[in-house]
Amino acid sequence: MPGKPIRLANADDHRWLDAAARLAARGLPLSRPNPAVGALLVKHGKVVARGFTQPGGRPHAEAMALAEAGTAARGAALYVTLEPCAHKSTRGPACADLVAEADLARVVVGCADPDPRTSGAGLAHIRVSGTPAELAENAACATSLAGYLVRTQLGRPHVTLKLALTLDGCIAMADGTSQWITGEAARAHTHAMRARADAILVGGGTLRADAPRLDVRLPGLEHRSPERWLLTRGAAPEGWRALPSPRAIFGQAAQYLFIEGGAQTAAAFLAADLVDRLLIYRAPILLGTGRPALGDIGLVALADAHGRWRPAGRRALGKDTLEVYERTRSSQG
Amino acid sequence: MPGKPIRLANADDHRWLDAAARLAARGLPLSRPNPAVGALLVKHGKVVARGFTQPGGRPHAEAMALAEAGTAARGAALYVTLEPCAHKSTRGPACADLVAEADLARVVVGCADPDPRTSGAGLAHIRVSGTPAELAENAACATSLAGYLVRTQLGRPHVTLKLALTLDGCIAMADGTSQWITGEAARAHTHAMRARADAILVGGGTLRADAPRLDVRLPGLEHRSPERWLLTRGAAPEGWRALPSPRAIFGQAAQYLFIEGGAQTAAAFLAADLVDRLLIYRAPILLGTGRPALGDIGLVALADAHGRWRPAGRRALGKDTLEVYERTRSSQG
Repeated sequence: MPGKPIRLANADDHRWLDAAARLAARGLPLSRPNPAVGALLVKHGKVVARGFTQPGGRPHAEAMALAEAGTAARGAALYVTLEPCAHKSTRGPACADLVAEADLARVVVGCADPDPRTSGAGLAHIRVSGTPAELAENAACATSLAGYLVRTQLGRPHVTLKLALTLDGCIAMADGTSQWITGEAARAHTHAMRARADAILVGGGTLRADAPRLDVRLPGLEHRSPERWLLTRGAAPEGWRALPSPRAIFGQAAQYLFIEGGAQTAAAFLAADLVDRLLIYRAPILLGTGRPALGDIGLVALADAHGRWRPAGRRALGKDTLEVYERTRSSQG
Repeated sequence: MPGKPIRLANADDHRWLDAAARLAARGLPLSRPNPAVGALLVKHGKVVARGFTQPGGRPHAEAMALAEAGTAARGAALYVTLEPCAHKSTRGPACADLVAEADLARVVVGCADPDPRTSGAGLAHIRVSGTPAELAENAACATSLAGYLVRTQLGRPHVTLKLALTLDGCIAMADGTSQWITGEAARAHTHAMRARADAILVGGGTLRADAPRLDVRLPGLEHRSPERWLLTRGAAPEGWRALPSPRAIFGQAAQYLFIEGGAQTAAAFLAADLVDRLLIYRAPILLGTGRPALGDIGLVALADAHGRWRPAGRRALGKDTLEVYERTRSSQG
């Protein structure tokens, strides 16, 4: 049984977990197939070591932080975005073992692991060793693990739909011209978002019209270019994977899918209720009779459109604005 | 010649002018046909009296503030959004006379009066009396007087185009259903904006489809309901004024025109380059194949769409967002 008293997570704890979640983002997307986890060891209000999941998925974040801390880990608090894994692997030790043996003051976990091999067992294992361990349910941690959580719970990637729109909701002039709606800062941001995705998807129309390379054109990040998926009932060109319908994303190994368009493809995923996040790059221009953002999303009544999206951030990107929305309803799975 | 030294307007002065501009808004729209002006008398860092243009246009803001202050005006600084009028009227004294006789420490004016009867003469008259008087060119003052400035300089009302849009730029379902895109807070805000307008305009399609009352449904503000204008080549129903084209707004006495739609009417004013301000009430919903916000605005090249609008404010209204944009280019007049 635990030998030390359990202290409930407070606002300070959540701030450390927020910081761990920011650190975790550095593991994306190269941690695949593992979740990108972040871990901080904190003593007397100061970070003594940090870790995030390394390329290929090992070492894990906790192992990195404990190795960096060495003996300084003793008596520290561990803040980790995801419950430490409890299952042995041929690729390395279970983190719950490492954590249990580190003589920590306490462990605060931002997010429970839905993997049945770890779920609850990671925390239990640490507690049994005598180290107080607690689940804090931190929102930033859950967001930073969205791909892993959706993949594990629903069996499909987390889906982000990107739209580059005018104030009046156009994606191009009537003749198809779309270079450029948004400015350089917005386009660079899109490349950074691609660099965090495991796969990018377009429709056949966009492939034929724009022949998009869909690679990452940021210096130093070229090697992160994600898989290229094509929504088509036909065959895909070399280097592309064909998906005959939105539901074909079920069973794919990718954690993060980034949908780039066009309007019919975006609508198909929305109609299938398979979009988790909207990234709207909004240019401060009006086009009038341009091409609309979306095809038919299967909406029957106006009332049904409400309550599906909650704002999750907004920032200026040059003259444009990035608006982020996240789904409010639980997915259909 | 002035007997007191002139001090250049500083940040404190601009803060007082900002406050005078906020006060001025209380005069809208009932000050018509006069501009809605705000005036503050400040002594030792404290407001000793305030005034804004009264219904019907008289008394003027300066006269109100000086009457409220009485002998306390002596030695105070006057902050006034618009240059005090220099021309005599049968309806009251010229404010420049009143101000010159009030034994003020100084006068700071936020905006020069483009009316040729006053332009420069108001400031000169006060200075000759021995009171230092200065033009500070305050942005909030100019914004608060936009209707008067556009009316006086260009001979037409200041035009606000209101759009109630989804994230993907729709104003209604494909079948025309638009009740409701935006929520109660946004609709109440629209009523408050109507209450500040002198005239509201819709197109024939909107009149036939929605039979909009276009009145102000806010308790206590019903009497502020503006004139109703209809963009039509035909006749207008009773209680409405027919305007055969957007350019028919030239010569109308209104200072503030509020355009409510629909898409063709909005596009006609944009195509004529006669929109000064966009109010976009944006609902966090997607419609897909709904009705687009705008008809043809006459855009030839995508590049021509850029640089026309600058962001001028954003606020949450319930679940919706109000985005304000102002024209960047000078009007075609």
